[in-house]
Amino acid sequence: MAADLVLSLNAGSSSLKISLYQRDPTSAALPVALLLTSSITSISAPPAKFSFHLASDHHKAVDVPIDSIKDHNTAFSHFLEALRSQASINEGRIVYICHRVVHGGDYLEPVEINEESYEHIEKLSDLAPSLSVIKACISALPSAKSVAYFDTSFHRSIPSHISSYAINQEIAKKRGLKKYGFHGLSFCLNLSSSDRDTLQPPGSLNLILLHLGSGASACAVKDGKSLDTTMGLTPLNGLPGATRSGAIDPSLIFHYTNKAGRITHDPSMAAHVGVTMAEDILNRKAGWKAITGTTDFESRPGSEGPEPFRLAFDLFLDRVLHYIGAYHLKLDGEIDALVFAGGIGERGVQFRSVIGKKVECLGYPPVREDKNNTASEDHAAVVDISTVGQEIKGRTKRILVCKTDEQIEMARECVLDDRFWNAT
Amino acid sequence: MAADLVLSLNAGSSSLKISLYQRDPTSAALPVALLLTSSITSISAPPAKFSFHLASDHHKAVDVPIDSIKDHNTAFSHFLEALRSQASINEGRIVYICHRVVHGGDYLEPVEINEESYEHIEKLSDLAPSLSVIKACISALPSAKSVAYFDTSFHRSIPSHISSYAINQEIAKKRGLKKYGFHGLSFCLNLSSSDRDTLQPPGSLNLILLHLGSGASACAVKDGKSLDTTMGLTPLNGLPGATRSGAIDPSLIFHYTNKAGRITHDPSMAAHVGVTMAEDILNRKAGWKAITGTTDFESRPGSEGPEPFRLAFDLFLDRVLHYIGAYHLKLDGEIDALVFAGGIGERGVQFRSVIGKKVECLGYPPVREDKNNTASEDHAAVVDISTVGQEIKGRTKRILVCKTDEQIEMARECVLDDRFWNAT
Repeated sequence: MAADLVLSLNAGSSSLKISLYQRDPTSAALPVALLLTSSITSISAPPAKFSFHLASDHHKAVDVPIDSIKDHNTAFSHFLEALRSQASINEGRIVYICHRVVHGGDYLEPVEINEESYEHIEKLSDLAPSLSVIKACISALPSAKSVAYFDTSFHRSIPSHISSYAINQEIAKKRGLKKYGFHGLSFCLNLSSSDRDTLQPPGSLNLILLHLGSGASACAVKDGKSLDTTMGLTPLNGLPGATRSGAIDPSLIFHYTNKAGRITHDPSMAAHVGVTMAEDILNRKAGWKAITGTTDFESRPGSEGPEPFRLAFDLFLDRVLHYIGAYHLKLDGEIDALVFAGGIGERGVQFRSVIGKKVECLGYPPVREDKNNTASEDHAAVVDISTVGQEIKGRTKRILVCKTDEQIEMARECVLDDRFWNAT
Repeated sequence: MAADLVLSLNAGSSSLKISLYQRDPTSAALPVALLLTSSITSISAPPAKFSFHLASDHHKAVDVPIDSIKDHNTAFSHFLEALRSQASINEGRIVYICHRVVHGGDYLEPVEINEESYEHIEKLSDLAPSLSVIKACISALPSAKSVAYFDTSFHRSIPSHISSYAINQEIAKKRGLKKYGFHGLSFCLNLSSSDRDTLQPPGSLNLILLHLGSGASACAVKDGKSLDTTMGLTPLNGLPGATRSGAIDPSLIFHYTNKAGRITHDPSMAAHVGVTMAEDILNRKAGWKAITGTTDFESRPGSEGPEPFRLAFDLFLDRVLHYIGAYHLKLDGEIDALVFAGGIGERGVQFRSVIGKKVECLGYPPVREDKNNTASEDHAAVVDISTVGQEIKGRTKRILVCKTDEQIEMARECVLDDRFWNAT
C-alpha cells in the first residue's frame, strides 16, 4: 500500500473543510493532485450539513444533513467513514495531515505537532476550533503526522517599526502585543501563483494582495515578502468583513456598550467589557451583516443600489482603497500587480471594475472589462484582467484575479518541505 | 469705552491658553490684532505656572509659579487680575469669549452658549476641561457672550460611507457612534492660510493636511472641505501622539490588561475594562512617551539615532506615510499641497525631509532643503518648502509649512461671523 496521501483540514468556528491530495513528486509546479473534497457546515447550528465529492465526479457536490455530527470531532469521524465507504480509500495511506491554525505567534514556519508544540499552539489560540480537530486526528489516525500551518508565518518579515504598536514596549514584549497579520496561507498561494505570469522572479515581486472574503485583509509584498498587512494582533483589525467591523476607534466598544446609551465617560454608566463580549460584538455582530442584514456581499446591488446596500458597498470600497493607497506609497509606487482573491475578489465584477478605474491615477492600466466579466468562470488559477501597461523602472503594473485555496497551499508546502519527505 | 475685544480660550486637561484680540473690521485678511497672550500650565501638577505677555513686549514670556491656582476656574481668575493690573485693560471691553470645545457632536457651526446649548455640549464632552472654563467665564464676565468653537465642525462634510463604522447601524445612530474627527480649528486655519499662496480658490483646493503635535491627525480636503480624517469617534484613533497610541487592534486593550499576562480568551483571566481605564492606558500611557520615555519628539535623534528613538521615529513616519498614501488615492492624486502644521510639523526638519523624499513617487517636487531648514524661523504664516513642480490637470503639488494657532482661528471666525457683530 502506497503511503502517498496528504490531508488538508481547515476548521472554522462552525465548519470543517477537508481536501485529500496525492503526492506527485514529478511535478514541481503543482506537486499534488486533488482526490476529493469534503465539507461540513452548520456544526454549531444542527443539523450539520455534510458533503463529499470526488475530484473525478463532474456532478456538483450535494449537502446532506447529518444528525450524528455534534462537533468538529464527530464531523471528522463522519468524514473518515465516508472515505472508506464512498471512496474506498484506506486511511493508512495518509502520511501527513495539514491543519490551518490561525495564530502562530512567533513561529516562522509550519511545525509538526507533538506534545510540546501542541501546548504552545494551545496557549496562542485558546479559542481556535483547529485544536479539537488536531486532537481528533491524532486519536483517529495515530500513524499519520499532523503539521500546523500558521496564517501568521507569512507576515514574520514585517519590520518592527510597522508591526509594533505605540504602547508600553515592556508590556508589549512580555504579552506578545504586536501586529501578527493573518490570511498568510492565501497570500502565500497568491504570491506563488502570480509569479508565473509576471516579469519578476518571486524574490523581487512587489504586490498588493487583496484577500476579500467574509474575512478580508490586504497585504503589501516587497521583494516577495510581507511588508505590511491590515489585520493586527487579531483578525479584527483592518478591513471590514461579513460580520467583522474591521478598524474602528479603540474607544468605540465602550461607548457601544455603556448604560447611558450615548457617548459618555461617566464611570457610573460604564459597562465593564471583557474580550469575549467585545469580540462577539465586533467580530460576529458587525460588518456587512450589521449594515445590510446579509453576509452575502456579492449578490448585493452595489453602489447603484438602494440603501443600506449602497452604504455597505461604498464603505467597503473606501476601506479597500484606503489600504491600496497606503501600500502604493509604502512600496514607492513600484508594484508588479494588484491581486484580487477571496470570494469577493474572485466574483466581485463591479467591485473590481470600480477599483480599477480609481487606481488608474496611480499608473495602473485600465481594466479589460471582457476579461473582468468572465474572470470567475476562467479555469486558470490566475487571470490578468488589465490591458497592457507601461513599463516603469522594470515593472509593468497588472491587475490579477487569483483563486485562493488554503488547503492546496498547505498540501503544496507539505510535499515540498525537505524536513518531511526526505526524512521518511 | 469701546466694546471691541475678543478673548480666545483653549483649555487642555492641565493647561489654559488665552489670547486677547482687538477687532479690526477694516482688514478682511486678518480682521483681528493680537493684544496679549497668557498661558497657565501644570494645573493638575501644582504649583501651576503662569505667564502673561503683551504683544508689544519684545522680551520672551516668563513662567511664574502661582500657588493660588488650583483648577481652571482659579486659573481664569488669576488671568483677569493680571489683565487689570499688568495690562490696564477693562474687562468690560470684552464682547465675545471664544472657547475651543473638542467634541461638538453634530453641531455644524459655532454656537453661542446659553442654558440649552451648554447642556447639550456637556452631554457630548462630559470630561472636557472647557466646561469648567465656560462656567467660570459666565460667572466672572456676565456681560460678554461665550461662543463654543468645535474641533469636530470642520469634518461634518465627511460623507457617511467614510464616517460610518461597519457596526449595527441602529445602535450607531442612537448613540452617535461615527467618525467625528478633531483638530478642525487647526485644519480650518491651515486651509484659509494656504490658499493665499496657491493657484486654486479655497473652494476648489485639494489638500493633505498634517497636524503633527503632541496630538496628531491628518485630513484629506477635497474642494475645500474635509473628506476624511484620521481621528475617529474620539481623538484616540489614527496617528500616534506624545502619549496616545493611535490606531491599534480594537482587541488589544483586553489582552493588555488581562490577568494571564499573554494573549488569551479565557474568561476567568479577563480584566473587566471600562472606558476610563482603556483611555488612561491608550491616551495617556502610550505613544512616543511609552516607547522613548519622553514626549519630546523633535529633540530626538531620528532615524539615524539609537533605539528606542529610532523605533519611535520610524513608527511615526510609517503611520504618517500610511495616511498620505491613502488620502492621495482618495483625492485621485489631484492635490494642491501637502501641508505640515503643529509642533513637529513646524519644527521637524528631518521628518519633513524624509517625507518629502518618499512622496516624490506620487508626483511631488523635491523639497528645497534650504527652505526646509529655516521654515520654523520664518515669520510668514505659510512657507513653501518645495521646488517648482509640474502642473498636472491645473494643479501643481507643493509642500507647505503652516503655523497653527487655534486661538486666532476662533477670533478670526468670531469677528467674521454675521450672526454676532451685525446683530450687536
